[in-house]
Amino acid sequence: MDQLDLLRRLSIPGTSKMVLLVMDGLGGLPGPNGLTELEAAHTPHLDALAREGICGMSTPITPGITPGSGPGHLGLFGYDPLAYDIGRGVLEALGIDFALGSDDLAARGNFCTVDPATGFITDRRAGRIPTEVGARLVAKLRQISLPGVEVFVEPVKEYRFVLVLRGSGLADGLTETDPQQTGVPPLPVKALRPEAERTAELLNQWLAEARRLLADEYPANSLNLRGLAKVPPIPKMPDVFQMRCGAIATYPMYRGIARLVGMDVLPTGDTIEDEVATLRQHWDKYDFFFFHVKKTDSNGEDGNFEGKKAVIEHVDQIIPEIMALKPNVLMVTGDHSTPWALKSHSWHALPVLLWGDYVCPDGVQAFGERACMAGGLGHLRHLDLMPLLMAHAGRLTKYGA
Amino acid sequence: MDQLDLLRRLSIPGTSKMVLLVMDGLGGLPGPNGLTELEAAHTPHLDALAREGICGMSTPITPGITPGSGPGHLGLFGYDPLAYDIGRGVLEALGIDFALGSDDLAARGNFCTVDPATGFITDRRAGRIPTEVGARLVAKLRQISLPGVEVFVEPVKEYRFVLVLRGSGLADGLTETDPQQTGVPPLPVKALRPEAERTAELLNQWLAEARRLLADEYPANSLNLRGLAKVPPIPKMPDVFQMRCGAIATYPMYRGIARLVGMDVLPTGDTIEDEVATLRQHWDKYDFFFFHVKKTDSNGEDGNFEGKKAVIEHVDQIIPEIMALKPNVLMVTGDHSTPWALKSHSWHALPVLLWGDYVCPDGVQAFGERACMAGGLGHLRHLDLMPLLMAHAGRLTKYGA
Repeated sequence: MDQLDLLRRLSIPGTSKMVLLVMDGLGGLPGPNGLTELEAAHTPHLDALAREGICGMSTPITPGITPGSGPGHLGLFGYDPLAYDIGRGVLEALGIDFALGSDDLAARGNFCTVDPATGFITDRRAGRIPTEVGARLVAKLRQISLPGVEVFVEPVKEYRFVLVLRGSGLADGLTETDPQQTGVPPLPVKALRPEAERTAELLNQWLAEARRLLADEYPANSLNLRGLAKVPPIPKMPDVFQMRCGAIATYPMYRGIARLVGMDVLPTGDTIEDEVATLRQHWDKYDFFFFHVKKTDSNGEDGNFEGKKAVIEHVDQIIPEIMALKPNVLMVTGDHSTPWALKSHSWHALPVLLWGDYVCPDGVQAFGERACMAGGLGHLRHLDLMPLLMAHAGRLTKYGA
Repeated sequence: MDQLDLLRRLSIPGTSKMVLLVMDGLGGLPGPNGLTELEAAHTPHLDALAREGICGMSTPITPGITPGSGPGHLGLFGYDPLAYDIGRGVLEALGIDFALGSDDLAARGNFCTVDPATGFITDRRAGRIPTEVGARLVAKLRQISLPGVEVFVEPVKEYRFVLVLRGSGLADGLTETDPQQTGVPPLPVKALRPEAERTAELLNQWLAEARRLLADEYPANSLNLRGLAKVPPIPKMPDVFQMRCGAIATYPMYRGIARLVGMDVLPTGDTIEDEVATLRQHWDKYDFFFFHVKKTDSNGEDGNFEGKKAVIEHVDQIIPEIMALKPNVLMVTGDHSTPWALKSHSWHALPVLLWGDYVCPDGVQAFGERACMAGGLGHLRHLDLMPLLMAHAGRLTKYGA
């Protein structure tokens, strides 16, 4: 039996409140002093929760597999990330409130810089042009039309935009144009299956016209498309878990994935304090809150040990405000590891802390990688976390007589 | 490959003796002094076995899922509880030692009260009528005959009874009549698949006659049927494991589950001492013994911390008598947790102790939740336990060349 089917069968409504606090890219590796970002951080409130709760390590997908943001979060939400494959383009479109339909094909677009003489990429992010410049270029790209399909181009932030083609017969199974390195030209879109041939042709036609329009727009004189995908059919969390789900996230992609699984995305600001205020404001209206903190990951990606540590300490400071709302169950973890030493997402299992009614405290004294390796939850998969959260909140009935 | 297929392929006969000692609902939660029922219990013999053996934590099904008695035991016996679904009617019939056959369809029956004017349910348990009244009403219901099938009605306790139809062509895949609320009428039995249409008709005919016979029997003037099910086809332990299996249990339901998987149910008395005497008496005739202790669970269900602790201490006292029989392998665990604090089955992983030839002692000093969380077996699923028991008894040959 698929786990979502089992959970759909066992989930029951209730009045308990659950918070899933996700520090993006939480897991780390030892720094110069031998401690990880989380271990080095001064986190008296998280440590107190670890002492009262039960801890463990969680593997996002399977051991050794590094997840993207989509699979990392799908696992956290109880969806098998190997069964539900969500393209980056879809996430990006959902994240800017674009109303994607089932006939839509979405791509994440990146403006880039190419050498006008050779056509080789010199900067994959076009010098991180300001958002206003990106918006002006997007307006220019809206001139392009394609035969038989509607075309939408939407700005995101800095050098990023979304391209959506709408029409019957569009298919995914397409390669990306970004070669992921400089000194080489962008790649053409290729169909990975016969049904996608026409879609690939349309996209290459669009790319050619777009590059012509951008030719004089140095440094954003070219572009790439990534994560070309359609929306997969996916069960909705409120249906599966019989609960009202609210999502609080400052970054579009995480709002997008939350919306995809059926959560209500709650308007919030740019800071962690804004997110806490949003949580407080909507506390009575939801059973389950997904609370996403982005900058742990951003600092990990930058290789900034101290920066990541500081974000974790910032989160620690708002723990009392969350606890003041009296959640029945609080789970703290990340979607994946982003160790400063790797400057990227990684496969490492990461700490998870479960606090709430009916946990059996395990003697773990602090929230950190090494402490959690000996935790009473043992070594779990992300897929196991929602069932545990639901169980401790009294939201799962018995299986079998 | 299904695990049972693998075990069937690898199991070999031998002369070793195995005991699986199951304290029902063993796992607990901290009490007022911070220790769980098992931790608080004085268990010098179990602690000695823990020091000589190897310990761990076992999850009955998957994390967060609370098992009923059927799935909890199936997992212990090596059967995937998500693959073998035993209906409530079947368990109820097994629980009164009813000899269910493969042509039988069993249902749990509940007497209830309906408003004579509207037919709406006013009490789903008919005021919990005394067991004697239930037995008299069951005798009355035995008047009903149905075309082409044998009908059995058996009392259970208070307002509960078992209905069994016996005949070829009966099929499960049937809805229950209990709407699980008052103020509405009982539901008809509906077939969820075409093969079950005739069975549904027979059951509705029986229900109509039963309600006519009960019309004047206030408060038990109506009834409901739940968990309508047939015995699923299930491999037998002696075939899978190449061993003679004896079951010792004081409560009918556990004898029933043991019989279902092909164990010989050994006659015993009501006490743990009776069970030990039965074990001693049959020691030479079996390879594997399932030894079930019920009252840990009963006390957990009652929220009785001290009572559950006392039952565990009682079990500890009979350990020397079991060890005097010189088993090669002894495994001690439970089918699930029944923490006093929850007064019900729960999802919590629970301690498991493996003692015997060729274990690698892990340094665990006492048998308890927190000690076992750090045990050398790590965190297992119930499904993993029979293979470990068999392996340590020298009963599994190598997989592959």
